[in-house]
Amino acid sequence: MADRSLLLIPGPTLVPASVLQAMAQHPIGHRSKEFSDLMAEVTAGLRWLHQTTSDVLILAASGTGAMEAGIINFLSPGDRVLCGCNGKFGERWADLCRAFHLQVETITAPWGQPLNPDDFAEKLAADRDKTIKAVIVTHSETSTGVLNDLQAINRHVQAHGQALMIVDAVTSLGATPVPMDAWGLDVVASGSQKGYMIPPGLGFVAVSERAWAAYATAKLPKFYFDLGAYRRDGAKHSTPFTPPVNLFFALRQSLQLMQQEGLPQIFARHARAAAMVRAAVAAWGLPLLCPVACASPAVTAVAPTTVAAEEVRTLLKKQFGIAIAGGQDHLKGKIFRIGHLGFAGEREMLTVIAALEAVLQQLGHPLTPGSGVGAALQVLATSP
Amino acid sequence: MADRSLLLIPGPTLVPASVLQAMAQHPIGHRSKEFSDLMAEVTAGLRWLHQTTSDVLILAASGTGAMEAGIINFLSPGDRVLCGCNGKFGERWADLCRAFHLQVETITAPWGQPLNPDDFAEKLAADRDKTIKAVIVTHSETSTGVLNDLQAINRHVQAHGQALMIVDAVTSLGATPVPMDAWGLDVVASGSQKGYMIPPGLGFVAVSERAWAAYATAKLPKFYFDLGAYRRDGAKHSTPFTPPVNLFFALRQSLQLMQQEGLPQIFARHARAAAMVRAAVAAWGLPLLCPVACASPAVTAVAPTTVAAEEVRTLLKKQFGIAIAGGQDHLKGKIFRIGHLGFAGEREMLTVIAALEAVLQQLGHPLTPGSGVGAALQVLATSP
Repeated sequence: MADRSLLLIPGPTLVPASVLQAMAQHPIGHRSKEFSDLMAEVTAGLRWLHQTTSDVLILAASGTGAMEAGIINFLSPGDRVLCGCNGKFGERWADLCRAFHLQVETITAPWGQPLNPDDFAEKLAADRDKTIKAVIVTHSETSTGVLNDLQAINRHVQAHGQALMIVDAVTSLGATPVPMDAWGLDVVASGSQKGYMIPPGLGFVAVSERAWAAYATAKLPKFYFDLGAYRRDGAKHSTPFTPPVNLFFALRQSLQLMQQEGLPQIFARHARAAAMVRAAVAAWGLPLLCPVACASPAVTAVAPTTVAAEEVRTLLKKQFGIAIAGGQDHLKGKIFRIGHLGFAGEREMLTVIAALEAVLQQLGHPLTPGSGVGAALQVLATSP
Repeated sequence: MADRSLLLIPGPTLVPASVLQAMAQHPIGHRSKEFSDLMAEVTAGLRWLHQTTSDVLILAASGTGAMEAGIINFLSPGDRVLCGCNGKFGERWADLCRAFHLQVETITAPWGQPLNPDDFAEKLAADRDKTIKAVIVTHSETSTGVLNDLQAINRHVQAHGQALMIVDAVTSLGATPVPMDAWGLDVVASGSQKGYMIPPGLGFVAVSERAWAAYATAKLPKFYFDLGAYRRDGAKHSTPFTPPVNLFFALRQSLQLMQQEGLPQIFARHARAAAMVRAAVAAWGLPLLCPVACASPAVTAVAPTTVAAEEVRTLLKKQFGIAIAGGQDHLKGKIFRIGHLGFAGEREMLTVIAALEAVLQQLGHPLTPGSGVGAALQVLATSP
């Protein structure tokens, strides 16, 4: 079905062959000792990935389901929350909060620009009565390729002392450091089809002790996403509802691959891949949607002016079988996005850069043949 | 990891090799034409399986998630609902309704006995003001092996004229007829790891036009499980959130296998497998938990008195690598359950019956060697 396809969108991402093989085993019973052992192993791996000793819970859900769980378990109707909005996902979390009757105040920046930590500082400092119950931030905004300054925003949340820090780490976890304990993050949500290098279908929510204290009094209704049940059963290496056991097989294998590589090496590889793409785009004289200083290690958004973004995508798919992403909502047709996340590394970046060069040339964009690949090789030669 | 294991629990069920292979393909982008084509194909297959022209929506969730979606989308806080409770899953839906502040009235029967349709008739007939908004029934109660008389209960719901009929069809769909349109069911929820013959991770909710009318005024908060979003995007062969694309690959293959076999043939095969097991159990002189007249085509619960249920399970696993299920909650240690659901058919039943005979003999249960297999063969020889 997809024999020729090279998937370089910001999720689902490429899946290593050994992970696909692990997933294709016969299912096991989820109330068996085999499953308990599997659950114990992947839970330990998830703690390693999150750099935490806190609970990391596994849901049968997409990343959006994980974020919903990460929000509704710790809040009550009418609670005041600050939500950072500078792209499709930030806006989605604001919509989600409104659907659950939270009192949402958005802190915005244009799509393609980072959130300003000072905007958070101002709101939080003014909240002398401590009515702000949570701050919700999308770390890596997949729709634009912006990496928000989570650490700086979180410092202001820590200074506030009451609000929970709830993080969408869907395309940042496994691509750049999200040291939950060191930074003191309260809720970190992610999804399997990103840095995890496995297919979509699992959501993850890491929960701090401070967040569990809030859970005890939170009143939003919940059942399938009631994280207390996942914590209770997780303590016995079990799950409250039937887990997607084959995706757990995949998770075990991918966590083993990640641990073999090591977190610093994984982050460095993502940084290199991102830098390669951006060097090539610069060599071609194409504008990036967002400044390099705040660019995500997971995805690069290019906003071409001399060629149509959708024509680039179509030709790249047709001629080379490479799938990259387009823009979402008002950026539809205006940008293309290259995923350099998870298993996609230097080799895939050389591939897509070379192929893009061919496509851009065909579409009439003025460039020096080989300039993009040359710039990427220069990055490879000089980066750690 | 499970090379020797034969999984005969009532879910996860056995997965055909071609389905495992289909699942082990590289993921595709979920906003691609390939995915739209896939979505259109599986949606048509799901309508065929549900015998409906209504929407059948696909969620990244377990069967419990599908039931939650099937309940919260059509009701408002304080709504009065009747919930049938004669096993673990019926009780779970009552708990779920309470978590969402519905006014729940349970209609109960002992675990192992069927719900009495007259009990529903009485409550519904007495409701002249039409305050009952929904009736929730678990068709096949997986925890006990009882098949509730959904058709009879539903006739009373139809006579009421206002209440929605919400059905947990998790272990009945694909094992016995659940003709949604012919019976006029409003919401039918199911999960992938059962009759579908694919691993866990997908939930399905079929929704009637009458249920969509209730959706328009339903006030329970929802976002990830907001079925209106799935319907809207489904009309474009898309999904609101990232779908588990590899499980969709599996679903396409399993629906093709099911369509090749045909619904009447699938139902007849399940009936044969169930009858084989029950004939063997009778030949051994072991009691069934529930009367044969109301026994599920998906799972048989045996309540041995001469041997310990858990010793049967342990020895069967150790000596033959066959996994069967135990009892849940207060039935723990008192019953064992054999799944004859999905891909598990006559061959697997002969296998488990022969192996059980060996195990029962070892544990000292008095039986005539070969009597169980002989009884099963007699069923095979005489059943259509």
